[in-house]
Amino acid sequence: MNLNEEVEILKGVPIFSKIEPARLKLLAFTGERMTFGSGQEVCHQGDPGDAMYVILGGVADVLINTDKGPLRVAELKKNGFFGETAILCDAPRNATIKASESLLTLKISKDMFYRLVSEFPTMAIEMMRELALRVEDTNQKLRALTAATKAA
Amino acid sequence: MNLNEEVEILKGVPIFSKIEPARLKLLAFTGERMTFGSGQEVCHQGDPGDAMYVILGGVADVLINTDKGPLRVAELKKNGFFGETAILCDAPRNATIKASESLLTLKISKDMFYRLVSEFPTMAIEMMRELALRVEDTNQKLRALTAATKAA
Repeated sequence: MNLNEEVEILKGVPIFSKIEPARLKLLAFTGERMTFGSGQEVCHQGDPGDAMYVILGGVADVLINTDKGPLRVAELKKNGFFGETAILCDAPRNATIKASESLLTLKISKDMFYRLVSEFPTMAIEMMRELALRVEDTNQKLRALTAATKAA
Repeated sequence: MNLNEEVEILKGVPIFSKIEPARLKLLAFTGERMTFGSGQEVCHQGDPGDAMYVILGGVADVLINTDKGPLRVAELKKNGFFGETAILCDAPRNATIKASESLLTLKISKDMFYRLVSEFPTMAIEMMRELALRVEDTNQKLRALTAATKAA
């Protein structure tokens, strides 16, 4: 894949969509592309984390540990991102991410992440938007389950 | 309150803590201080929203509509912020915020918010951190309730 093709792919990712194409070349240059085969883990719950990932292609499962073994709680698709909590909060990985089909990711190190957010505030805004939507979505599920539990 | 006292208060707010004090004067100048008496609403669920708020003092209840009336789901204290979802996602207010004691807030308009985030990337990082913690916290509650529901 040449640099222009890479830039085209990055332009389609919402958190990068408002960064000027010329500047996306920096990201295409510096971000690390990593591929994972079906069933392969990208990161493991409890491990320390020093990078976040953006999915450029493929699908991954989000698994959490329970006393009955790993439980699949969500699915991540193209343009999704994960791993930001570990680098923002200096916390261990809060879930295991496993490719459920061939997965292409852009790995962004913690240092690179802070540099990108400082240089490209639109990336921070898009990430905040996505995080706000996740809070809202999880809150709605929590409220629905609380209401169902009380009604039962 | 004079400008230096205002800057001191803003320095104590985590999302502003890494902004250089000299530049906090801009915020102290431009942000709008609003006070609310106990029982007074800051914003109402379902209304359109064009500002976020940072609590500089006092306590507020977060209420959501249910078929049995308003339900208190959280409490917000000094240094907390709210209202960001409406301006990030162009969505109506997702909750009613009501002062439970005398409340002092810094109101930040949508335009000012985007300007601040662009000028002060550390503010965006602190907000992302707080949002990531909220996602994590809500997810943990959801998982605990799901497990309890299945066990029952």
